[in-house]
Amino acid sequence: MQIQSVSNLDSVESKTDTLAVEEPLEIRIGYIQNNRPIHKAISITMRTPGKDFELATGFLFTEGILKSNSQIKSIKHCGKFPNNQNTVRIDLQENISVDLKKLERNFYTTSSCGVCGKSSLEALATGAKPIEKTGFPLVSYEIINELSLKLRDAQNVFDETGGLHAAGLFDVDGNLLFLQEDVGRHNALDKLIGEQFLQEKLPLSDKILFLSGRASFELVQKAVMAQIPIIAAVSAPSSLAVEAAKEFGITLLGFVRDGRFNVYAGNERIIYETATA
Amino acid sequence: MQIQSVSNLDSVESKTDTLAVEEPLEIRIGYIQNNRPIHKAISITMRTPGKDFELATGFLFTEGILKSNSQIKSIKHCGKFPNNQNTVRIDLQENISVDLKKLERNFYTTSSCGVCGKSSLEALATGAKPIEKTGFPLVSYEIINELSLKLRDAQNVFDETGGLHAAGLFDVDGNLLFLQEDVGRHNALDKLIGEQFLQEKLPLSDKILFLSGRASFELVQKAVMAQIPIIAAVSAPSSLAVEAAKEFGITLLGFVRDGRFNVYAGNERIIYETATA
Repeated sequence: MQIQSVSNLDSVESKTDTLAVEEPLEIRIGYIQNNRPIHKAISITMRTPGKDFELATGFLFTEGILKSNSQIKSIKHCGKFPNNQNTVRIDLQENISVDLKKLERNFYTTSSCGVCGKSSLEALATGAKPIEKTGFPLVSYEIINELSLKLRDAQNVFDETGGLHAAGLFDVDGNLLFLQEDVGRHNALDKLIGEQFLQEKLPLSDKILFLSGRASFELVQKAVMAQIPIIAAVSAPSSLAVEAAKEFGITLLGFVRDGRFNVYAGNERIIYETATA
Repeated sequence: MQIQSVSNLDSVESKTDTLAVEEPLEIRIGYIQNNRPIHKAISITMRTPGKDFELATGFLFTEGILKSNSQIKSIKHCGKFPNNQNTVRIDLQENISVDLKKLERNFYTTSSCGVCGKSSLEALATGAKPIEKTGFPLVSYEIINELSLKLRDAQNVFDETGGLHAAGLFDVDGNLLFLQEDVGRHNALDKLIGEQFLQEKLPLSDKILFLSGRASFELVQKAVMAQIPIIAAVSAPSSLAVEAAKEFGITLLGFVRDGRFNVYAGNERIIYETATA
């Protein structure tokens, strides 16, 4: 679009600017209940269009609703023209029942009046299992220090609009395997995990997740669902993200940029010796 | 907390780090229906504790549920010890009925399968009215260029943890009137607007909203509810944020930092002449 670009040098110029696209996506699931087909709208998220099937799948998996690819009968965009690209419906196989109560924890809660620190970790947990091998995989600090630049190099759209969050999946040798971007950081991670889910590559027990922003509790929770053992974030983690990382056996790194990083949990997965000839 | 701080100079040191606190807040409303008291959990948000009453109030106002302070009978933390600080209940006056369907638009939708660009603005709108006076208030570009540093100077916690979003309210002379911080940018804005709501200072028709991050559709929507005519954000806006700003008559500025900014909507509120003696 054409915008006004203004600096304090009293220069005002009209120039072309590229915006990160944000549009709503409605996620629906279809299933059979008492021999009747049910179509239920589960969530509306503000997202960057593209990889919508991955986003919807990743969301339903990380919320604990979907367990495996084999539960899915079909995924399609639906709705009326011209808006049919903003609704995705995942139809489940006929023998699959869904536990929609798991979703309600995010929106409405029927529990007694008390959500808090320690108990919230339980209340909000999506049935995720802790990561068992606390010393696996190992990754060298030199590899970690390369992740930030590698992600930025791959993140072309980010450079153009400055408005997208990124989630990247690396192996422990520092190779970028997959990258997803979105205006919402939860969406970027859901797209990443959903893609792996659809390719039946879960669990991601030997991978590193790299986040372009901050590490929140909910992002750690999604990583736990995919069994990703190492999370590296460009910015700071929250207190509850660190608590969750410790509780679920995840290595959590923050401020991973400019050749340095902080270790908030799971230090035993980092190799500090320099490889010498 | 104690963390490992690692740099590529092969230096590993243990140091103390301060984290942004993130905990869940459950927002409940209490009202009378058919002569019976109803307590309904509306939402759980991951927030930084503090200003919980303002956050709950701002959320319910910007979602179109609360209209005025006079509808509120009482606000209190509730729940069982020791977790009672993570639930807030707003009890409404006995003659007030609530339209919970407005909330459902965020979570479940009962509309036909079709949410999209233009129609989504209508579907997602919370009953907000456009801002009428398109040429009011006026603000000089020099004032705008000062906002970023003023917010950072005031944002002490941000500097320490690097994990908090900020929402600041300025007058058109560039004076910072109010500042709220949170791990969630929506929460920071809800706290800011909720505080003004409780002080009966809405609408904020002559103020500037400054956001420490990106401008999304939902943040613009909240500003519209409070009738804030000018939004300045440190980072990029999304496409739908710009569309919403144009539709609702808001001046939207992005990349407001380092002595420059971009104008995405509502250029007529900016004064470009330099004040000379």
